[in-house]
Order: sequence, then structure tokens, then C-alpha cells
Amino acid sequence: MTTSAQPQTHTPQPDTDVSMPASADAAATRPQSDEELTDLGEALRRATGGRYGPVRDLARATVPASTMVRDPELTMPEAREWTTDALRRLIELGMAGSGFPVAQGGLDDVGRSCVDFEMTAHGDLSLTVKSGVHFGLYGGAVTALGTQWHHETFLPPILSMEQVGCYAMTEFGHGSDVASLETTHTYDAATDEIVVHSPTPSSTKTYIGAAAHDAHVAAVYGQLVVDGESHGVHVVVVPIRDEDGRPAPGVTLGDNGAKGGLAGVDNGTITFDQVRVPRSHLLNRYGGIDDEGRYVSDIDSDGKRFFTMLGTLVRGRICVAAGAATASRKALSIATRYALRRRQFSAPGHDGEVLLLDYLAHQRKLIPGIATAYAHMFAVNELTDRLQELHEMPTKDQEAQRELETRAAGLKAVTTRFSNDTIQMCREACGGAGYLAENGLTTLRGDADVFATFEGDNTVLLQLVAKGLLSGYKEMWGDLDMRGMVQFAARAFGGQFVEATAARPLVERLRSAAARKGEDDTLLDRGWHLAMFADRERHVLETLATRLRRRADDRDSFEAFNSAQDHVLLAARTHMDRFVLEAFVTGVEACEDEQVREVLERLCTLYALSSIDADAGWFQAHNRMSAGRAKAVIAQINTLCAELRPQALELVEGLGIPEPWLNSQMLRDETAARWTPGAPV
Amino acid sequence: MTTSAQPQTHTPQPDTDVSMPASADAAATRPQSDEELTDLGEALRRATGGRYGPVRDLARATVPASTMVRDPELTMPEAREWTTDALRRLIELGMAGSGFPVAQGGLDDVGRSCVDFEMTAHGDLSLTVKSGVHFGLYGGAVTALGTQWHHETFLPPILSMEQVGCYAMTEFGHGSDVASLETTHTYDAATDEIVVHSPTPSSTKTYIGAAAHDAHVAAVYGQLVVDGESHGVHVVVVPIRDEDGRPAPGVTLGDNGAKGGLAGVDNGTITFDQVRVPRSHLLNRYGGIDDEGRYVSDIDSDGKRFFTMLGTLVRGRICVAAGAATASRKALSIATRYALRRRQFSAPGHDGEVLLLDYLAHQRKLIPGIATAYAHMFAVNELTDRLQELHEMPTKDQEAQRELETRAAGLKAVTTRFSNDTIQMCREACGGAGYLAENGLTTLRGDADVFATFEGDNTVLLQLVAKGLLSGYKEMWGDLDMRGMVQFAARAFGGQFVEATAARPLVERLRSAAARKGEDDTLLDRGWHLAMFADRERHVLETLATRLRRRADDRDSFEAFNSAQDHVLLAARTHMDRFVLEAFVTGVEACEDEQVREVLERLCTLYALSSIDADAGWFQAHNRMSAGRAKAVIAQINTLCAELRPQALELVEGLGIPEPWLNSQMLRDETAARWTPGAPV
Repeated sequence: MTTSAQPQTHTPQPDTDVSMPASADAAATRPQSDEELTDLGEALRRATGGRYGPVRDLARATVPASTMVRDPELTMPEAREWTTDALRRLIELGMAGSGFPVAQGGLDDVGRSCVDFEMTAHGDLSLTVKSGVHFGLYGGAVTALGTQWHHETFLPPILSMEQVGCYAMTEFGHGSDVASLETTHTYDAATDEIVVHSPTPSSTKTYIGAAAHDAHVAAVYGQLVVDGESHGVHVVVVPIRDEDGRPAPGVTLGDNGAKGGLAGVDNGTITFDQVRVPRSHLLNRYGGIDDEGRYVSDIDSDGKRFFTMLGTLVRGRICVAAGAATASRKALSIATRYALRRRQFSAPGHDGEVLLLDYLAHQRKLIPGIATAYAHMFAVNELTDRLQELHEMPTKDQEAQRELETRAAGLKAVTTRFSNDTIQMCREACGGAGYLAENGLTTLRGDADVFATFEGDNTVLLQLVAKGLLSGYKEMWGDLDMRGMVQFAARAFGGQFVEATAARPLVERLRSAAARKGEDDTLLDRGWHLAMFADRERHVLETLATRLRRRADDRDSFEAFNSAQDHVLLAARTHMDRFVLEAFVTGVEACEDEQVREVLERLCTLYALSSIDADAGWFQAHNRMSAGRAKAVIAQINTLCAELRPQALELVEGLGIPEPWLNSQMLRDETAARWTPGAPV
Repeated sequence: MTTSAQPQTHTPQPDTDVSMPASADAAATRPQSDEELTDLGEALRRATGGRYGPVRDLARATVPASTMVRDPELTMPEAREWTTDALRRLIELGMAGSGFPVAQGGLDDVGRSCVDFEMTAHGDLSLTVKSGVHFGLYGGAVTALGTQWHHETFLPPILSMEQVGCYAMTEFGHGSDVASLETTHTYDAATDEIVVHSPTPSSTKTYIGAAAHDAHVAAVYGQLVVDGESHGVHVVVVPIRDEDGRPAPGVTLGDNGAKGGLAGVDNGTITFDQVRVPRSHLLNRYGGIDDEGRYVSDIDSDGKRFFTMLGTLVRGRICVAAGAATASRKALSIATRYALRRRQFSAPGHDGEVLLLDYLAHQRKLIPGIATAYAHMFAVNELTDRLQELHEMPTKDQEAQRELETRAAGLKAVTTRFSNDTIQMCREACGGAGYLAENGLTTLRGDADVFATFEGDNTVLLQLVAKGLLSGYKEMWGDLDMRGMVQFAARAFGGQFVEATAARPLVERLRSAAARKGEDDTLLDRGWHLAMFADRERHVLETLATRLRRRADDRDSFEAFNSAQDHVLLAARTHMDRFVLEAFVTGVEACEDEQVREVLERLCTLYALSSIDADAGWFQAHNRMSAGRAKAVIAQINTLCAELRPQALELVEGLGIPEPWLNSQMLRDETAARWTPGAPV
């Protein structure tokens, strides 16, 4: 069933540089792995790798699992120390700074920086988050919001880890509502400095990764005040600790202490008491202060500037989506591998006891989950590629950028919801063994949990998606704007739905073909699935627009928005479901290996039917599905689970996490006898 | 809105002894509490207290919160020490041993022992589980499976904590399948001893609470072998540690280490190498060895004896249901109280920022959850009362016992599923603050998690429920028996459904009244809700029976069972949904205060409609609900949330957890300024 380890047969794609920037030795080595994979498992990895597949292969082949997984028994101080050490190792391994400018030692490849982030998530999410804060959020803010001087000054010590950076956005009083942050950056013309200050208890920065112990420098969000006038939120680089770890003058640092997970991340609080930094520390790409002490910006409107600056969060959200998707894949890999060796209850007329995965109920837990995990891989790949494509464009396409921001926000919400549900399901599917930290699931669950609320709370993000849809990506966004949402809807709405899908000729062709058939023929028909998803989205969005439009003249636009909030969230979710399905369908189309494609098609059908079944109430209530068909969908899901069951091992191999990276004691050969009733001592 | 603290106005009900057995001082004090409650909140507590309400009031009034809550920052060794100390304090507080015989210092009140367990869950679940293992499982096994000598010998040192007990049932190789445990209890006639032995690696006991550090003595499940003949699983009391904590000769003890929660519980492994104990250590109420060395039992069949012995697990399952229900109530209390002080985003035309609980989406998360939490309170009360009623009956009613076992198994599965989903939802509803351990939700989540798989894995338990239903409680059960389930279905099935509901005249009357009305009138009609729940259950169960009956002659009864496993689980769930709704309706009926009753009726409607909405796909596919009605249900849920919103504080007060027991830093007054943007320093 398995092939012996061989140098991988697929060569890096020519358009992708898989060399590791900071490690010439690693780059010189072709990807090789000790992992024993089935042919199908390896082919599934290849089919799901996308543009950055070779980067993933290289990491799997060259990074020792031992450097990427953490002993779950470490205390919080030990876990923090391990994580900081591991962060340094990422640099040696070349998994850091890919998104930085070439001049500062990076690759100027923001897509690859997402993949680097994702690969750390194959190992340990504390490391993922810590590197995300340091390289992605702090380094990313300097890169995206700063200018050349900032790059030259602040990025090299980040890439060398001489300095640890943190990202001081959230305050006790405001998290989702970034525009209302209370921290002030007041320009003092007399000394040509910016005074950073926390004016209220609620303006203390909190949950800031690396603030409790490691960080030397912070990208601090606050209201920029120049000559008494506020210009909205801007970012200033502020030293918060000296090299010996002592707080900088005027800076008070606190420790958020134990959390629901991420024991290796030292989240903390930062309070500023009139802390002075030179004017040059203002990241002034979109708005700054000139030598005469006047505020200057190429963007006239404060709102538009704010949304442009927040638009730089897009990478972080794709990263979080990729990290959460990886966490789901890890959990599914652990639970499925366990279900392939764990037996319980004798079956009348069968030899021995029954493997967990041979129970229909167990299949129904794990196999649709695996199908969704595949769907998310293709969706993450699509956004990662798109991010880099737009980055490479010489002129910015604003609508394309908005669309990407919308989908990144939505995919982050969808994958993190799925990961929290799925890791818990996998934990329970492993019984008592799943509850032991040594088996990998509980740490993963605790670590991934916060992904649902950081980098944008999921509920808020889904509202942003709806706002993007209602405005046809023509409006700036990045914040929850209740009045704006109602107003968008009041304008002529329509057109953009078709426009957004027209970009996929394959999807259009399949859907049209299905429309010509009757219901009886089409249960497995991809066109029918695509039509169902698109039709659901269209109907939800159009009725939402109508509903909001009817209330557009209400004096109370909060009430108008709020009364439809469940509808708003449904619109966003159905849009993302369609996006994910179309990404899956497009990804499968690109697969040339017939056997692999057949498996992927089956997974895609299972994903589509599971989603239709989960919304069976909606589809029937809106006359999109008959009672008979609703029952047939469930029967078909059971059939698909049975058909995919024999390939379960290959399917989880295809999810891309090598077994040693799963960090699960119960999957190791030396403990196998425990799970084999009657095996001799 | 709140009344000042006064001695509570409701006196203990005369039929319940609220005195604390081991603390005369506490018993002499009338319940008094420092808690400031609204009138409605207090009245809701009274209405949901049931027979043991006064016991709960006394604990809330007399037990200091500080003795019941644990610092979430404690390391695992510190948490274990805290828990062991707290266990001792339970004895001083009289919250221990209520279920023990009066002669051994107990109250012979098994219902009250469940409530004692539940009250510890108001504070800390490690303490709950540790006390559950020591008093409930170990003490309960000795009480229920032992005879007078065992009670006199083994119970006093448990109640004095001179000995700590543990419950050694689960092995690496077998958890759910208790009948297949591999540990052997072999009678050696030559020395009149029983030899306890672990013959295989998979027979090592694992996940055993208190085994890693504290336990001196274990109730060990194993196959009893007398004169070469096996008589199935029996329990033997085995010393495993001496008073200095050294393992007994032949006993090897291991530590399960860090877990997903319950840091205070020292779960571990036990391996026996030919450990000898006197014959008297066999708990022989249902089967033993006489002085001539012959196996003797009043119960002829090994299977029936096994099921009778496992029937003693019923209390543990009610306890776990109560504990999980309490954990849900804690989480909902924390998240709702936070949502009543946390604001985010300005609303156009409104002063200040919007309270989280004023968002429809937030209401839709929390308020239906609160409604379900109320439903579960009434259901837990009903089973607790029933447990004690049956315990007090001079002759045992076997069918009633089976029914109780069925419902206990089912309610455990339903409440633990709900608690895992709900605690996570509440964590996310509190954003970053919810992720900090100091705010109480993440520890609760990790601790409650395992309730879904211990004391019976939920999937297995739901199958037991289906088995009970198919056999009309006329067959013994306690184990998953696939052949049996198919065979029950093959016999004449019917009758018991009506029989089981006929016991509730109120329910019958309401349902009949609804049947005479049209769909238009009945959206808020309790009779319609009851009819929908009953009809769903009846249809699912009848079609399941038909389906299994059709396969009854299959040679492969595993395949026959397995192909319908999703249907089996649905039958169990729909049965439990009906039971919970009927318990809720019956509980509301008993409430005499009109204002309180109105609130409870609204919660009951919200619970019923939420369940109907969650199954909207099924109801429509089976022609039980029109498309229009499916949409109307959602609109009505939104309306009910809006109607209940102004009473949110009162509703969570009614959930019964005093604020200091929530152990949530963010709810304390001294941190309030953090959550109030713009408040002065």
C-alpha cells in the first residue's frame, strides 16, 4: 500500500523559486523526504499543492519535524522560550521574511510568505502566531505602510531577530472597531516628535503578541493629531523595551497570562504615558507630516485612507485562513489515522472487533470533514495566488483588491469556524485518547480557537463580506459601517453577481448544462451543485438588498441594519460557500491524473452535497429542492462515504501533514500494542 | 433593577431535608446569601429549583465562592494539590456522601448526591470530577455492588478521606465495550484469594481519575474466573498504594499527564501483575464466590447480571448531565453578563456605542442558548427526582429502571453535546477577552470537553437509547448489541411510544387541542410544538423499526445495523428532544407565579422553535411543515429574542450561578473601566 521513500518525482514548477533565501545549503538540496506515502496520497498532494506546492514539498522534506513540534507538557514559561527559539530557527530554515523587499533580504513574494506561515502551522500554532506577529504583522506593517527609510531602518533587525516586533492595534475598549481606537499620536512641532499616549484605561493595548516578554518594538495604531486636528488612525513605530528587556521610559507592559491556548505566545498589554519618538517613526506611505509640520497625504478622504491602510490586513487574513485550514487537516489526519487502527465492539459474524472507521456514524463524522478540508485547500491556494498576482501588477486594480479583501475576510471566517468545529469533532472521535495532550488534538484545539476572533471577529468579517457584495466591490470598506450597508443596498443593486462568476467559464458551462436537465438526473451533476450554490447566494443577496432598500429612509439606520443582521450573515456565508465550491471545481479541473481526479471529483461532490444537506431547510423553504431530493441527498452522502472509506489513508496523506508533524503519541508504532486488544506483552 | 441582599424569602420545602450531614453548624443556618438578585432572577431560581432547590440554595448561600473556584494559572501539580484539598473541604461543607447508606454517615439520598455533584460544577469541574470519582464512582460501586461488609469496611475511610478511591473500568483496549475488558480476577481456592492481573498491554487500565497520584484503593473491573470458568465482568476492591503513596506490590502506576482540561484530576494508568486480595474484596451483591469456592449469583444469565451491574452507572450519567448542563449555564452567564457591559461600534443616530447584546446576531447566539439551558435544568431535575423515587421504592420496577437508564444515557449525550457547542460559542462571543484564562471560559471549555466521551461515549449512549426504545424498555441493556438491536426491531414494535407519553396528561391535552387547529393559528401553540416533537420521534422510530425488520434475516447483522446507524442516532436524538420539551412543559406548568411563568413560557417556545428550525430540513422533507411556516419559525425566533432581551440579566440570574462562582475577571467591578471607552483614568 505504501511506496518506499524516493526523491519526489514532481519537480518544482519553473515559475516558482523554491530556494530558501537565507540558507544556501537548503536551496541546493532537492526536496527529499523520509515519509512513506502511498502513490495516491503523493499524487493528491501534488494535485492540491498549487503554485506554491514545491515550497511546501521543500519544507516537508527538509525541515525536521522535531524542530516544528512542541512538547505539550511544557509550562507556559517553557513554551514561550521554546517558541522564541523556534522563531530563530525559522530564519535559518529560510521560512521567514519572504514578503519583505528584496533589498532587505526578502523575496518580495507575499504569496510565499503566506505559505511559510502555513507550513509553521503544520507543526505548532504558537510558532505560527509568533512568526505571524513578528514577520507578518509588524514586518508587514513596516513594509506596506512605511517607505524606503522605514524598510531600511526597521526590517533588517527583524529578519536577524536582533529586534522582536509586535503589532499594537487592539485596545481594551476597541477591537473590531479600529476606527475608534483611543491611543493618540500627537505631533509636537517644537521638538519634531510624535507623542504616543494612552489617555484612558480602555485605551491600553491588549492581547498584543510578544508584548508580555519579547518585543522590543511595536507598530502602534492611534489617532494622529497634527496641529490640533485629528487625521484618523495611523501607525507609529515605538520602541517598548531595551535590549535587556527593560520597558522603555513611559511604557508600562503587562502580561495577559494564561490563555485558552497558544501557550508559547507572550500576549500582553502596553500603556503609553507620553512616549516620544522622532517624526520619522510615523509610517507615512499613505499619510505623513512634512518638514513644515503639516499633515500631507495623497488620499484626500480620511475614510478612504483608513480603508486603504486596513486593506493591508488582507495578507494576515489569508494567513489565518491557511493556518486554520491546516489545523483542521491536522485534526482530521490524527482522527482518521486513529480510526484506522482503533477497534471497538465485536460484530456478529465478523472476525475480531470493528475498526472505528467502518462504522457509518464515524464515516459521517470524518469523511465529509476531509472533503471540506480539500475544498478549503483549493480556496486558500486561489486567494494566495491572487494576492501575489495583484501584488505583482504594476497598477493597482481597486475593484480586484476589494474583491480579494472581501474573500480573504470571508474565507478566514469560514475556515476558522470549520476548524473549531472540526478539531472538537476529531477530539471526540478519538474518545479518551483524544483528550490526552500527548495525542495532539487538545493543544491544537486550544491553539486554533482564537483564530475565530482575532485578525477580525468572524461575525464582523462576514458583515464586511456582505458589504462588499452589496457595493459590488465599488466602495471602500474595511470597517463595519451600518449606515453604509443600508445605503449601498438602496442604490441600484444587481449585475455584480453575474459579473463575479463570469470569470469562470468552466463553472458557467457546467451550470448551463445542468439547467437543461431535470432533477432526476442531476444528483451527482456538478452543474446542479454549482447552480444550487449560485442560486442560493443570488436569492439571499437580492432579498437582502430589497429588504434593506425598503428601510433606507428609516431615521434609525442601526435598527434597519440590525433587523436584517441574520440575513446579512447568511448572504456572506452563502457567497463564501459558492466561492469555495467554485475554487474546488476549478482546482479539480486542473488535475490531469485521471485516478486522482476521480477521487477529487468524489470529494467535491461530497462537499457540495453536505453543504446542500446542511441547508436543506432553506432549499426546501425556497422551493429549490423537493422533499424527495432532500432525502436522496442524505442517502448519497452515505454512499459517497462508503466509496471513499477504502482510500481514507490516502486521503489524509493528501492533506499534506507528515505523520511526525502530527505530534500524536497514539499514532506511533511503539504504542500500537495498546490499541490492539489481546496483543501479547 | 436589583434588590438588596436579604434572607431568601422562600423556605425550604418541607419534604426535603436541607441539613448538611457532616456540618451541624451549616445546617443550623438558614440559607443566606450576599448575592444581589433581581426579583425576577430570584423567582426564576425558585421556579427551576425543583425538589432539591433548597439544597442548591443552601450551597449558594453558605459555600464561599473562594473555596470553589480555582486560579486558572495554577500549574498541573498545583491544580492537582488544590483539587485534593478542595475535596477535603467538601466533606466539611457536607457536600459529600449523601448517597451513602445512613449507617455509614450518608443520607441514603442518591438524588441529593447528584445535586452535590452539580453544585461543585458551579465552581470547578476538576473538583466535580475528582469528587465524582471518589464518592460517586468508587463509593457508588461499593454501595451499589457491595454488601454490608463492604459498606462497613470501605465506605468510612472514603467519607473521612483517609483513603482516596478510584474507579478502574476503562482499559487501553476497551472503553465503550465494557463486556470485553481483558483484566482478569481469578479465584485461587488454595489461598482463598482473588488474583487481579493485566494479561496484555491493552488491558492496562487508563484515564483512571486519581490513579496517577492520590488513590489508595481501586474498584477494578475484570473478568471473574472461578475454577477455570469465566462469569463475566465483576468488580474487586484492590489496594493500589500504601498510605505513603508507594505503589502496592505488583501494581504499576502511570500518569496520563497533561490533558485537554481537568488539570486538577490526576488521571493515570494501572497495571496489575498477579495482585492478590482476599475473596471478600469481590463486590458480590449480584454475583460472588461462596465458602466452598463456587460461583453463586441470584441472576442466572451472565448477560442479565452484567446489565444489572452496569445499570448502577445510571447515577453517574445523570451527574454528568447535570455537570455539563451547569457548565453551559456558567458559560452563558459569563457571555451574557459581558454582552450587557461590552459595547462596540457607534450606531448612527444613537448615543454612544452599541451593547453587544443589542445586536440581533448576538441575541441569536445567546438567547436560544439560554432557553435550552432552562430546558436542560427541568430535564435534569426530572431525572434526578426519578432516580431517588425509584431508589425509595420497596420493590424494583424493572421497566421504570430501564426507562430511567435510557433517559439518563440520552440526556448525558444531549447536555454534553450542547455544553461543548455552547461554551465555545460563548468563548467566541466574548472575543479576545473570552480567550484569556482569567475570564473563565477557556478553562470551562477544556474541562467540560471530556464529558462528551466519558461515562459513556455519546455516540454509543445514543445507540443505547435507540435500543431501549426499540425494545420498549422490556429488554436488559447497557451495552451496544448490534444483533440485539436488529432483533428487537424484528419483533412486534409499537405501543410503547404512546405508553411513554400517556404518563403526562398535560402534554396529551395540549397536543390534542393543537391537532384540532389549522397551521395558521399554532406557531406559538404549545400543543403544536409537542405534536411536532412527538410526531418526529414516532416517524423516525417507526421507519427505523421497519428498516431494521426488513434486514432481520440478513446473515450480516453488523451490516444491517451499520447501514442504518445514522437513523438509529436520529431516533435517539428525537426521542430525547421530546423528553426534554415535555420536562420543560411540565416544569413550567408547576410554576404558580404568573410573571415568572410568562417568561418561562416564552423560553419554552424559543427552545421548541429553535429545535424545529434546526430540523427544518427534516420537517419539510417529511411534509410536517410548509415552506411558509419554516420561514415564519425563523421570524418568530427573532421576535422572541427581542422580547426576552430586556430580561437578559434576570434570565442568567435564574440560571443559578452566583457571579463570584463564575470566576471571571472581566465581570468584576474593578476592571469595568477597561470595557468603557473614554472612561477617565
